[in-house]
Amino acid sequence: MRTLLHFPISPASRTVRLVLGEKRLPFEPVIERAWEQRPELFAINPAGDVPVLIEDNGLIVPSAPVICEYLEEAYADTPLLGRTLAERVEVRRVAAWFDTLFAREVSGRFIDERVMKRLSGRGNPDGGALRDAYASMRPLMRYANELAENRNWLGGGFLSLADFTAAAHLSCMDFIGDIDWARVPALRDWYARMKSRPCFRPLLADRISGITPPEYYTNLDF
Amino acid sequence: MRTLLHFPISPASRTVRLVLGEKRLPFEPVIERAWEQRPELFAINPAGDVPVLIEDNGLIVPSAPVICEYLEEAYADTPLLGRTLAERVEVRRVAAWFDTLFAREVSGRFIDERVMKRLSGRGNPDGGALRDAYASMRPLMRYANELAENRNWLGGGFLSLADFTAAAHLSCMDFIGDIDWARVPALRDWYARMKSRPCFRPLLADRISGITPPEYYTNLDF
Repeated sequence: MRTLLHFPISPASRTVRLVLGEKRLPFEPVIERAWEQRPELFAINPAGDVPVLIEDNGLIVPSAPVICEYLEEAYADTPLLGRTLAERVEVRRVAAWFDTLFAREVSGRFIDERVMKRLSGRGNPDGGALRDAYASMRPLMRYANELAENRNWLGGGFLSLADFTAAAHLSCMDFIGDIDWARVPALRDWYARMKSRPCFRPLLADRISGITPPEYYTNLDF
Repeated sequence: MRTLLHFPISPASRTVRLVLGEKRLPFEPVIERAWEQRPELFAINPAGDVPVLIEDNGLIVPSAPVICEYLEEAYADTPLLGRTLAERVEVRRVAAWFDTLFAREVSGRFIDERVMKRLSGRGNPDGGALRDAYASMRPLMRYANELAENRNWLGGGFLSLADFTAAAHLSCMDFIGDIDWARVPALRDWYARMKSRPCFRPLLADRISGITPPEYYTNLDF
């Protein structure tokens, strides 16, 4: 069976798990602690990070955006990018917004400070970095909420890679309890719809030693 | 005519300029100083950065990877991603390696310390950050040199987006004089081939006030 090297609290890994699940492509998930820098990981992915998809035919596909483009081309039955050029631009734009700006300013910082530092033995969270992340979070969550208010789905009128990418970032932050959902009611409703999809179930079952997600993390109605 | 908001010493902007040039798509380049955070920039790109492509039909396409995927779909005459699934995975993987790992550890740091700090009035380069960047640079340049040694082009047997992405990062670093080409002879030969392409000419003419590129920056034979 195809294999996915992944890490549970990684938006990039979660994006790919959701897309594989939505496309109904079975896979064996294998947890990779990339910060341990196993030579075997570098041998299949010179960037040394996860996720990495290994297909049954031996094809190795590293990095979430590359995997998602590959899956879209290889398994076109459940298209997740849209059909017209303009639709595909908007889906990729929103996905890239979460993977770059939102990751750099918000989700990446929270995950690094609250999860990765502990797991990789790099000490305690830095209060200043967390304050910066909270300050950056407000306007960016407001923008995400506006998308949810004005559209059926975050990338447009249809469920797309934009939704899975956004849900991957937000679900990691929800796991560590850093989202005040009351401030973003439209986004909260959208997220409740995302959580109830079958592809989401494995993510809600993730557990990491030493971190207990809040009770509402697995509650489909919040 | 189509317009590209860009910044000269930005690997993301340069990637798109090279791809537009290679595909022979005329465009009007407009310099955008994204750090000044013009509201007009946020109105067309909520991520607030460059490059942003504005097509004649009004379609706005922000972010280099999104623009490159768009150009590949909209203007397929000069394909730059390859044909088979495996070729396309490898081209996107190498491009992503430069845009993520290489940018984070090397090119992004050099450009931020030596160019962006000065232009945006954030003080002098941080010696520690530059030392870190030099230390990270060695193994990554070695890897890039291995690609150049073992293949006709960096993404495989054909000229591709991997080459333009790599050339965009390396040409920014070359502009500020931070590459010791003698250490990476295969990459140097590949770069000389890239520099001599017509699409490269506008990049070699870029000038930034207060920074003089080394003499060999514009020398096609080094």
